[in-house]
Amino acid sequence: MVSKKTKPIILISNDDGIESKGIRTLTKEIRKFAEVIVVAPNTQQSAVGHAVTMSNPIRATKNLIDRNFYGYAVEGTPADSVKLAVMILFKEKKIDLLISGINQGANTAINVIYSGTVSAATEGTILGIPSIAVSLTSYTYDNFSVAAKFTSKIAKVILKKGLPKGTLLNINVPAVEKEKIKGVAATKQGKSYWADDYVLRLDPSKRKYYWLTGGMKKLDKTIEFDQKAIDENYISVTPIHYDLTDYTAYEEIKKWNLKF
Amino acid sequence: MVSKKTKPIILISNDDGIESKGIRTLTKEIRKFAEVIVVAPNTQQSAVGHAVTMSNPIRATKNLIDRNFYGYAVEGTPADSVKLAVMILFKEKKIDLLISGINQGANTAINVIYSGTVSAATEGTILGIPSIAVSLTSYTYDNFSVAAKFTSKIAKVILKKGLPKGTLLNINVPAVEKEKIKGVAATKQGKSYWADDYVLRLDPSKRKYYWLTGGMKKLDKTIEFDQKAIDENYISVTPIHYDLTDYTAYEEIKKWNLKF
Repeated sequence: MVSKKTKPIILISNDDGIESKGIRTLTKEIRKFAEVIVVAPNTQQSAVGHAVTMSNPIRATKNLIDRNFYGYAVEGTPADSVKLAVMILFKEKKIDLLISGINQGANTAINVIYSGTVSAATEGTILGIPSIAVSLTSYTYDNFSVAAKFTSKIAKVILKKGLPKGTLLNINVPAVEKEKIKGVAATKQGKSYWADDYVLRLDPSKRKYYWLTGGMKKLDKTIEFDQKAIDENYISVTPIHYDLTDYTAYEEIKKWNLKF
Repeated sequence: MVSKKTKPIILISNDDGIESKGIRTLTKEIRKFAEVIVVAPNTQQSAVGHAVTMSNPIRATKNLIDRNFYGYAVEGTPADSVKLAVMILFKEKKIDLLISGINQGANTAINVIYSGTVSAATEGTILGIPSIAVSLTSYTYDNFSVAAKFTSKIAKVILKKGLPKGTLLNINVPAVEKEKIKGVAATKQGKSYWADDYVLRLDPSKRKYYWLTGGMKKLDKTIEFDQKAIDENYISVTPIHYDLTDYTAYEEIKKWNLKF
């Protein structure tokens, strides 16, 4: 049997769900040069953080992406989708790269820890696959083509260079036309955070309920930080990892000399 | 009006739900020296990661903890509970410390990123409150008294010393009697990970579904790492933060000199 592997195999997932425009546009772009596998949640999963489903069973159903091209819709989270894709659905494939996205909305600064998009890429990294998360930084602007083109470009770079073990790239693309993009900035996770608030309402039975609301408190001054890079119309590329140890504090806590 | 603050104010939350034995035992212990506020999810929320609820409204209902002492049960995640407690329910209080726990089951190594217990403490840290997460490292052994005693002890240390801004402590207590505990180790997040697998089953209509299963692949050799410390019957205290930037990789990615 003549079977020469010519194309890289790329797994695409997301947290906005398999029907979202972001994953569809990305898939179309990446299929131009790669064999693409799509496995993504069947429904929108934003702000799920790095959730995995343990107390319920998971199902996967075929989902038409394009003529004769099917993906799998998973009843679960982004991390579930990636786990199931790698360990069961496409167990026999050697996946060269995982792309999570294109997410609708920024995953910068503190948002990174809430992000389902990032969690899919984190799961890929844990499973030993070079992985990236891509977001378009607007909830309303929905032209994903610039973000898809850049993703295609950086995917090829990573297929060549690889990524350090345990590192993933969190990419944010400004929601503007290509001409307005000033460049690409290697960035750090910004210090900006949500100044959250809750709106109190009363239901018809006069019981209280609350809606989360709020705006971003922007604290970063230079394009070394993801949020500021985006605000200045740079594409931001932040290498992140899942070792949460605070090494500076570790040295401090050792000195506490705790006993029990 | 004479109102002298004599006791520290401590917020207690968790991810196992307000009815769980871990939070009840902890609350009883901490009330010995502090004014305690309990705000926790109404149902078990394990492995939710750092999820927040945005697309649904949140409710909070009073929940009897002990004679005349009420907490709030929140229809939401651990992070939701902490946000709502700090920003709405107890807005007027100056909370001195947040304790999330006591969780049933270890939050060591890779588990940290899936942990709802840790996410409650992370949310507290984001909101500027010194915060700790505490877990008892067994799903079956349910004597929380040793863990509660140690938590009480370290809570007093933190109330005195404080914590570095942006740092929280992730504490794991071995599921053994006090006499068997060898000591307290300042630790780093371990490199052990889950060797996940899925079990395939068929439902009565012969459709496939999958259950997540698997065991921990233990890679750490010394008690400098949380998982190994626990295995050796040390209480592990890991300082963690929510800056996921991989600074080593950041220097590397800068050299890539990315363009678009």
